[in-house]
Amino acid sequence: MEAGKTIKIGFLGMGTVAQGVWEHLSKNPNVLGAKVELSKVCVRDTKKKRDVSIPPEKLTTNPRDVTSDPSIDIVCELMGGTTRAFDLSMEALRAGKVVVSANKAAICERGDLLFEEAKKMGSALFFEASVAGGVPVVKILREGLVANRFPLIYGILNGTCNYILTRMERENASYESILADARRLGYVEADESLDIDGWDSAHKIAVLAYLAHGVWIKPGEQMPVMGIREVKLEDMLWAKDFDYRIKLVASVRKNPRTNSIFASVYPALVPLDDVIANVNGVYNAVSIDGDVVGRTVHIGRGAGRDATASAVIADIADAIKFLKGGVCVRRENKKLKLAKASEVTSAFYVRLGVKDRAGVLAKVAECFAKHGISIERLKQLARSDGLSSKAWLILTTHETSEQNMSDVCSDLKKLSVVAERPFVLRIFKTPKI
Amino acid sequence: MEAGKTIKIGFLGMGTVAQGVWEHLSKNPNVLGAKVELSKVCVRDTKKKRDVSIPPEKLTTNPRDVTSDPSIDIVCELMGGTTRAFDLSMEALRAGKVVVSANKAAICERGDLLFEEAKKMGSALFFEASVAGGVPVVKILREGLVANRFPLIYGILNGTCNYILTRMERENASYESILADARRLGYVEADESLDIDGWDSAHKIAVLAYLAHGVWIKPGEQMPVMGIREVKLEDMLWAKDFDYRIKLVASVRKNPRTNSIFASVYPALVPLDDVIANVNGVYNAVSIDGDVVGRTVHIGRGAGRDATASAVIADIADAIKFLKGGVCVRRENKKLKLAKASEVTSAFYVRLGVKDRAGVLAKVAECFAKHGISIERLKQLARSDGLSSKAWLILTTHETSEQNMSDVCSDLKKLSVVAERPFVLRIFKTPKI
Repeated sequence: MEAGKTIKIGFLGMGTVAQGVWEHLSKNPNVLGAKVELSKVCVRDTKKKRDVSIPPEKLTTNPRDVTSDPSIDIVCELMGGTTRAFDLSMEALRAGKVVVSANKAAICERGDLLFEEAKKMGSALFFEASVAGGVPVVKILREGLVANRFPLIYGILNGTCNYILTRMERENASYESILADARRLGYVEADESLDIDGWDSAHKIAVLAYLAHGVWIKPGEQMPVMGIREVKLEDMLWAKDFDYRIKLVASVRKNPRTNSIFASVYPALVPLDDVIANVNGVYNAVSIDGDVVGRTVHIGRGAGRDATASAVIADIADAIKFLKGGVCVRRENKKLKLAKASEVTSAFYVRLGVKDRAGVLAKVAECFAKHGISIERLKQLARSDGLSSKAWLILTTHETSEQNMSDVCSDLKKLSVVAERPFVLRIFKTPKI
Repeated sequence: MEAGKTIKIGFLGMGTVAQGVWEHLSKNPNVLGAKVELSKVCVRDTKKKRDVSIPPEKLTTNPRDVTSDPSIDIVCELMGGTTRAFDLSMEALRAGKVVVSANKAAICERGDLLFEEAKKMGSALFFEASVAGGVPVVKILREGLVANRFPLIYGILNGTCNYILTRMERENASYESILADARRLGYVEADESLDIDGWDSAHKIAVLAYLAHGVWIKPGEQMPVMGIREVKLEDMLWAKDFDYRIKLVASVRKNPRTNSIFASVYPALVPLDDVIANVNGVYNAVSIDGDVVGRTVHIGRGAGRDATASAVIADIADAIKFLKGGVCVRRENKKLKLAKASEVTSAFYVRLGVKDRAGVLAKVAECFAKHGISIERLKQLARSDGLSSKAWLILTTHETSEQNMSDVCSDLKKLSVVAERPFVLRIFKTPKI
């Protein structure tokens, strides 16, 4: 492919995820390291109202306008389903296009044919978005951990079931009541059974099993699949008594002795001290045991518009690299500056060695007040190191700047009642997973 | 590069990690998707005893035999240090070779020059092994999450410090006593200050900051760096009182408002319900907030021969792809077979709806015994659903086969005392992180 050429991308389907891709690529086209044009979009209804504004001349109801347009380099299949979507992906591959797909069902059912066609045409199929949207697990397995064999891969691959189980436990609520909520919130697929009965997880673990072991396992016939319908709140509480948490676990294991492989999806009791047991809500997690690297665990949002869009965009970037046959390197950013201590804020933990005498607390508190730092919690403790004439003052502050903190420390040092240099730690608060 | 050509790899240094790379590549050369030859190794002492047997004619004490040999395509710099290692990497790049490096210190100090030289020569430098060995975080940031900007990246990047903090808390032991142990176990670098005082973490977060933001931040002058020397056991216990755990946290944040960036390394209190707070021992973890994908967390061994070797081999695979300008796809594996139910074992949780009458327990226990399944724990509970004539029997089993379990279930169903189909869950026990 000639250098500097603008790469044209066509879309099959413009649902939630595709709109996410469109929006983010329109905002930051440079992340792809190439000039790209979002050139054609096949939809069922061109008049339908969408969150993103697409020039009407780019819309079509005829998929051939995408799969057969010789100017289009990359086709993103984001329409879902296993029949029409599969046929159109095959068409695009036959036409020599690189295909990006988020369609786990189609890939699980007939991925072998898709990959075969891609190989035959010297093209490629990228499908990061088909498994655990926010977790780049396809790339991790295929490239990052390429040195490894994989005796065990297991994890949480369906955000809807994990959301339901998490809320049942946290709210002591029944399966039915939370499911009703999940439906209201639009967390459950139109075909509920895909989520609830474990088929979505099964499609995903089948894709991971193919990546790890190069074989296709058919959910159902070759893989036991059980969902969460029959899990009672009582089961979760009793499991907790035994130090377990119930999660819908998809797994694939290989027995090196018998050289055999076993994949399954079922609600399982996971020990509370396993990281996977502590992945809650809509988050997905994949735990990968590699024979060289040992265990790695990867956690992220499993679904949703933006998490999935992030994966599709990564695939488009790889598709472009594939077309160019090069490796993209991150660009420099000269505009960034380093933050000043006055701009950086944190909450702090302070251990203060003080003389054990009246008025200490007042002097210390006054010092913090002077610098506008409000104390969150405070306790005074006798010293264990036998310095009975001294005491420990332990306190935590509310959010303040690094500058304020270093100022208060230099003032504290000067106080006659303070016996030692203050010992300061940051409290690292971030949004919860 | 002509197709089918054997790719020659040279090594600078043959220490622990390099020997790991050598061993695993000798065992599974096909993981690289190309014919490779481990052709030359520069060492200080050719006579030294090593775990891997290297043909003497491949050993040299003259680095030029590696950096200037026109037949060598890829040079792995695994000697460490920042002066000689840097000079030799530059030499290799100038000679047009692709360089793979695990040397975070050299990359952090003068990576800008290395990348510049690589770019100038149309070559490349790969450095996955330089940050969190077992976690393919370089690839995740650069490729898997390419669609994202990164407001916050934080985590545990030094296994030695995490090991010491973990044992202090678990064993109520002092910093000094555990440090002494870590020394005995060879977990501490020759230059202890690199680990203990946070410089190793600083080098690594600097590399991640470059990947995420394209700027180089100098530890010390531009980045506050504090290690764990002054952390007392008491601090850890008091932090726990406040629902925090003390970890050595390396982080880089970007403030989009001021377009400024702040990197730091310090012991920090992390909320106990943050996944990062529950990453213990020698494990590393990186939490990445992407503006598109949301939060992803990646956990794995941070150092050690094999985890680092896994990363170096992934880099060699990428270097080969770079040389070929193609994309490697995983090979099929026809030899694998699917496991039979009799080959797959697990521990089980069973909820049994039984009639509330004498002799039930005996009949049920007998049924399990008949199939050689030993019961681990058992409790009988009154039913909450008002069926007072019935009771719940909740039990967990020791490891047994899927076959045995389905056999016992079909027998249980036939028992007159069993009122409902047994409800079975697997207990998912795996090695702990």
